[in-house]
Amino acid sequence: MPADVNRQIILAARPVGYPKESDFQLVETPIPQPQHGEVLVKTLWLSLDPYQRGRMSAARSYAPSLEIGEVIVGGVVGRVIASQNPRFAIGDIVEGRLGWQEYALSDGHDLRKVDPQLAPISTALGVLGMPGMTAYFGLLEIGRPKPGDTVVVSAAAGAVGQVVGQIARLMNCRVVGTAGTPEKIEYIVNELGFDVGINYKTEDLEQALSNACPDGVDVYFDNVGGPVTDAVLNHLAPYARVVICGQISQYNLEKPDLGPRNLRALLTNQARMEGFLVFQFANRYQEGIQRIARWIREGKIKYKEDVVEGLENAPRAFIGLFEGKNFGKLLVKVADE
Amino acid sequence: MPADVNRQIILAARPVGYPKESDFQLVETPIPQPQHGEVLVKTLWLSLDPYQRGRMSAARSYAPSLEIGEVIVGGVVGRVIASQNPRFAIGDIVEGRLGWQEYALSDGHDLRKVDPQLAPISTALGVLGMPGMTAYFGLLEIGRPKPGDTVVVSAAAGAVGQVVGQIARLMNCRVVGTAGTPEKIEYIVNELGFDVGINYKTEDLEQALSNACPDGVDVYFDNVGGPVTDAVLNHLAPYARVVICGQISQYNLEKPDLGPRNLRALLTNQARMEGFLVFQFANRYQEGIQRIARWIREGKIKYKEDVVEGLENAPRAFIGLFEGKNFGKLLVKVADE
Repeated sequence: MPADVNRQIILAARPVGYPKESDFQLVETPIPQPQHGEVLVKTLWLSLDPYQRGRMSAARSYAPSLEIGEVIVGGVVGRVIASQNPRFAIGDIVEGRLGWQEYALSDGHDLRKVDPQLAPISTALGVLGMPGMTAYFGLLEIGRPKPGDTVVVSAAAGAVGQVVGQIARLMNCRVVGTAGTPEKIEYIVNELGFDVGINYKTEDLEQALSNACPDGVDVYFDNVGGPVTDAVLNHLAPYARVVICGQISQYNLEKPDLGPRNLRALLTNQARMEGFLVFQFANRYQEGIQRIARWIREGKIKYKEDVVEGLENAPRAFIGLFEGKNFGKLLVKVADE
Repeated sequence: MPADVNRQIILAARPVGYPKESDFQLVETPIPQPQHGEVLVKTLWLSLDPYQRGRMSAARSYAPSLEIGEVIVGGVVGRVIASQNPRFAIGDIVEGRLGWQEYALSDGHDLRKVDPQLAPISTALGVLGMPGMTAYFGLLEIGRPKPGDTVVVSAAAGAVGQVVGQIARLMNCRVVGTAGTPEKIEYIVNELGFDVGINYKTEDLEQALSNACPDGVDVYFDNVGGPVTDAVLNHLAPYARVVICGQISQYNLEKPDLGPRNLRALLTNQARMEGFLVFQFANRYQEGIQRIARWIREGKIKYKEDVVEGLENAPRAFIGLFEGKNFGKLLVKVADE
């Protein structure tokens, strides 16, 4: 392909239910040139995250919907290859929401510089990026665990869940994770130090939670919603905190699923359930990044990435997210570093 | 009937679904005599409250279940008629959980003295008692409204709801209440000053909420659960607070009802939902009582009582609670003051 072509993936159709490959279209456009104040970024790593599904819907949410024909929204780590902005030099590694494309212009306001000395730069999309910040602030500021608490996290092997569980371990909590394959269960218990892993696809959730959480659940960090969450709500401890971080089981439903009305569990346990978006902590990201980077250096936090090669494979990998096919933070390697 | 007989209503059978009169039994026992440290209280007013339904179930909750044959639990305002306890004199008016009976012994630890100068003594079971404290602390400490917020309260004409709405008015909130009869709607709007009343039995809830809450719902004080709550959750404003105070629509169901899984509404709005029991504020009841009593004297808070005469009519009146038959705080007048 010619060197001056920018490959982009655009929204071809709004997904109905689960997204399918025909909802996406690969297009080729000219590589843009930066004007005054702008930088041109070459994408190295693209992040695939469940929230992107919400942007593909027309439904009202916290952020505007994508229009048909727009480049799919997504976090990128890339290299500045041309700059008309004094804040950025050629060669800088940056992170920003530049979308599913090989090259992107930015006026710089939404770019942050990534320190390649801190950790591999791909982590700026994972453990040192949005998912890591989500885990750090969501667990500590919304869930507020105390040493000795029992913390349950769903999608425990995912980009957010694996960090939540490890931070809870650092706080001397009892940590229980749910995941959907034996390999993920083995990983969170034997590699990440979770006390118990529950395979929600094969185990009796009620029984498994009773066994794993004999004193009830003090903090539930929810990434999935649906039946897993229904079950955990039956095991809350008094004054439990339920962090609503994601509801991936619900994102591809055209109407909300039906489930038991279980708010009485909040009443009798005087429990708090709170939804949050990581942006509410944006002014504190440096705290989270530095803290997690230190834990990585000290060997206290591990992370797992699931890497797909080539922008053209982003749609298929994204679809797989909703089937639990990824194992760890899902990334597309778009170009060599 | 002989003067030395204590009429009591005991649990004859655990209700299955809605309670029925045969689940209760009126029995006659001797009036007990106080021993050292005890007082004998003659019941004047008995409080009927939805929470009592929970105690009749065997299911685990925040308080122990009643056993078959036990006197039904319930708040009472009565007069001390014999005392072996130096803290209480004959003639004192007291409030305590003395149960559905005409006379009760107490060691005094769970009795509080009622000041008959403050307001009619029956209010110690309503606006100046548990329901009033529930409204005051639940709204102010859990819901945390700000002036200008839109506050929605369900069961708005009930013992708790009417106080919630009026306190929210005092805070210069926009106040919307739901209730199930035209008389209740008329009352909350024309007597209590709610901005809007919605008859959940006859109106299209979604449309009515859209009209009543054009900027969304900042605080939802929920006494009912079920479809009313489902609808309100579709109208939350960013950073909304949902106070789970009661779920009366669910108390007579043998299994949780099915409803839409709507936790995503908490996520996208970064909303908090919190259950509470008024006992968590027990050390501050005097603050709530004095404040509400002042508002009553100043004409800023009104209250409505629904009085049934005679202990023997308690079961039927209690059953009516779950059909919305009461209009205001439901009390049984057991004896003349």
